[in-house]
Amino acid sequence: MRCDVLAIGTELLLGQIVDTNSSWLGEQLAEAGIDTYDHRKVGDNLGRMVRALRDLLEEADAVIVCGGLGPTPDDVTREAIAEVMGVELERREELIAVIREMFGSRGREMPENNLRQADIPAGAAPIPNPIGTAPGILAAFSLDGRDRVVYAVPGVPYEMHRMVREHVLPDLLARSGAQSVIRSRSLKTWGTSESGLAEMIAHRVDAQQNPTIAFLARGIEGLYVRMTAKAGTEADAQALLDAEDAELRSILGELVFGIDDETMESTVLGQCRDRGWTLGVAESLTGGLIGARLANVPGASSVFRGSVASYATEVKRSVLGVTAERVVSEECAVQMAEAAQRVLGADVGIGITGVAGPAEQEGQPVGTVWYAVAVPGRATEAVTAKLPFDRERIRQFSTITALNLLRLRLRSLP
Amino acid sequence: MRCDVLAIGTELLLGQIVDTNSSWLGEQLAEAGIDTYDHRKVGDNLGRMVRALRDLLEEADAVIVCGGLGPTPDDVTREAIAEVMGVELERREELIAVIREMFGSRGREMPENNLRQADIPAGAAPIPNPIGTAPGILAAFSLDGRDRVVYAVPGVPYEMHRMVREHVLPDLLARSGAQSVIRSRSLKTWGTSESGLAEMIAHRVDAQQNPTIAFLARGIEGLYVRMTAKAGTEADAQALLDAEDAELRSILGELVFGIDDETMESTVLGQCRDRGWTLGVAESLTGGLIGARLANVPGASSVFRGSVASYATEVKRSVLGVTAERVVSEECAVQMAEAAQRVLGADVGIGITGVAGPAEQEGQPVGTVWYAVAVPGRATEAVTAKLPFDRERIRQFSTITALNLLRLRLRSLP
Repeated sequence: MRCDVLAIGTELLLGQIVDTNSSWLGEQLAEAGIDTYDHRKVGDNLGRMVRALRDLLEEADAVIVCGGLGPTPDDVTREAIAEVMGVELERREELIAVIREMFGSRGREMPENNLRQADIPAGAAPIPNPIGTAPGILAAFSLDGRDRVVYAVPGVPYEMHRMVREHVLPDLLARSGAQSVIRSRSLKTWGTSESGLAEMIAHRVDAQQNPTIAFLARGIEGLYVRMTAKAGTEADAQALLDAEDAELRSILGELVFGIDDETMESTVLGQCRDRGWTLGVAESLTGGLIGARLANVPGASSVFRGSVASYATEVKRSVLGVTAERVVSEECAVQMAEAAQRVLGADVGIGITGVAGPAEQEGQPVGTVWYAVAVPGRATEAVTAKLPFDRERIRQFSTITALNLLRLRLRSLP
Repeated sequence: MRCDVLAIGTELLLGQIVDTNSSWLGEQLAEAGIDTYDHRKVGDNLGRMVRALRDLLEEADAVIVCGGLGPTPDDVTREAIAEVMGVELERREELIAVIREMFGSRGREMPENNLRQADIPAGAAPIPNPIGTAPGILAAFSLDGRDRVVYAVPGVPYEMHRMVREHVLPDLLARSGAQSVIRSRSLKTWGTSESGLAEMIAHRVDAQQNPTIAFLARGIEGLYVRMTAKAGTEADAQALLDAEDAELRSILGELVFGIDDETMESTVLGQCRDRGWTLGVAESLTGGLIGARLANVPGASSVFRGSVASYATEVKRSVLGVTAERVVSEECAVQMAEAAQRVLGADVGIGITGVAGPAEQEGQPVGTVWYAVAVPGRATEAVTAKLPFDRERIRQFSTITALNLLRLRLRSLP
């Protein structure tokens, strides 16, 4: 089974919007074990859409067309599919009612234009869109004697995601004859390079066909190891994932900080919560980024007390009581971590200080960072790093590294 | 002149990397007045690359191929272009020397693999790559009796950007016969909706052919109005931009916070610097984001003193001395802004407090935010807003809005 992707929109060609939809679709297709070899973007132009669709359907069994389902005259995905099928559009009364109700529930009248969204090529079926006005289209037909299927989905990402997960992928899998359940899980890691990680688990990647194992480098969110399992039932798929999960963790150890929707910050907040501890941060070069990441976790307020971004040296002294002579130093980082406990009334404190650039500071080169973690009843520990990055990446990298050090410290406690 | 785009890389199809290169290229081409109608992504597969390239060259005068110039055996862009041209690859001694030197300057030996990067199709020319090992390719040839040109550029964004700006676009413009200089400028705005902005300047957009005017919605970076001018000389292009710039500003007024590389935070820091004032922030729901944005501006340290992210109510009281009974209130925001001045030793203070969710607080619904700005010698002013967004967007939107309020306050002072 091969399914290609056609993204529609002049604004995509002009770079006014980055086409993240195709990437997301590629990821979903790969995970479902469906080949995808050609992704195209064309503008809101009927002739070019028809040509691209015909061309893709010469080799692909299926094409997902993304976008061009809006109510305005330049939205012509419906017309393009009808032309490729060689049929007319039919206005579906039942869809008009649904679209009218969608407007009504928002207290608005349906504009006349939106009637066009009830047009479906003869012989095709609408795909329900419970969160938007544009229904999708499922068009299965014969082209030059071969079975082909075209799915049209909206360009609005959250409408598209839902429609693809609930309707398009199950239909594709059914057509591909796959009786299987496909499930994936990502182990998220921090603390080694992509090539280092690859080396550690190369033998598993080579040995494993089910689940398959892939890497995803997600910048300051971490390096992910994604397992994708196929099985006859949900339980069997989960069992395959559980077994490989255990295998990989025995190799990766404490590099793994979470799975799937977990983030470094949600993990750290969870660790603190488990011990009934609160957390405070004293930042410098990161300017508030560590606090901002922590505060982004829903429910953070039961653990996170706050953060002091003491950018100026005098603020380190006046607000945090730092007495260290040099502010890019172990002593300063330790004093900051302990000040985060004391000043913010927190059980656990993070202190971070360093040189983000553009210029060196106190004779220390750009990229020099000191991290300290203070926990109850233990001596405060500090480490340093020299980061060979630019200003923005030094700050981003320092943020996740500081949180990771706290994670490792909390793990090591009895 | 029409130039299409072919992005190469299996990792793009699998969604492991989002293809931002094509978007960037589309933007550059549009700005240069060159049509672009079809963008494709294919994997590292010689057959599919050749087929896509031939297919695109049927209608396009030029194609930019992005990626596949690396040293490994799956990098086959060189081979694909040679096949479409119907010629052999030639190994260029002078390129070997350059690549060897590139490795040498980094203290490394050139691996044998990298010799492949010195291969250029016979009759094509290398494009210099001063910041990477992969030279680009400029292949101008005749296909089915028509003049065609293919440019191959690396997939690494900063290498690609430089090569396109310095070599590809000038060559394309020369071939298109355009003798003109094309220059653009973006006015960045905050404070109105996209449709509101569109209405305000609709008559200019309709009236203007040179410069042309386009909108770019860039989320929490603002709404941009981009002017693109064509002229015979640099001075004439700048004069056209200056004239339209003045026209648009007379309509948009204080909505405009900067141009091009300026950001809301760099503008605000510049305003403070001009008055010799320092800036401190007392945040709550934003958790440190305002400080983080300010600290991201190179040279921030001469103005930015720091930020207290007082997430817990007790921290607002103990560190900032807030006495307001309710913390989601005008009184609290004002006390926080004045505490930012006092506690952080700053001339100007920002205070922000509100409900990011998931749950309401003090009977105030999610999205309620109070902003206050304190400046020397004036009464502190506060405003409130109800933001109909999710947690993440409430925090992001509040951050730029707080900075924008300070910008407007500083503008209004004598």
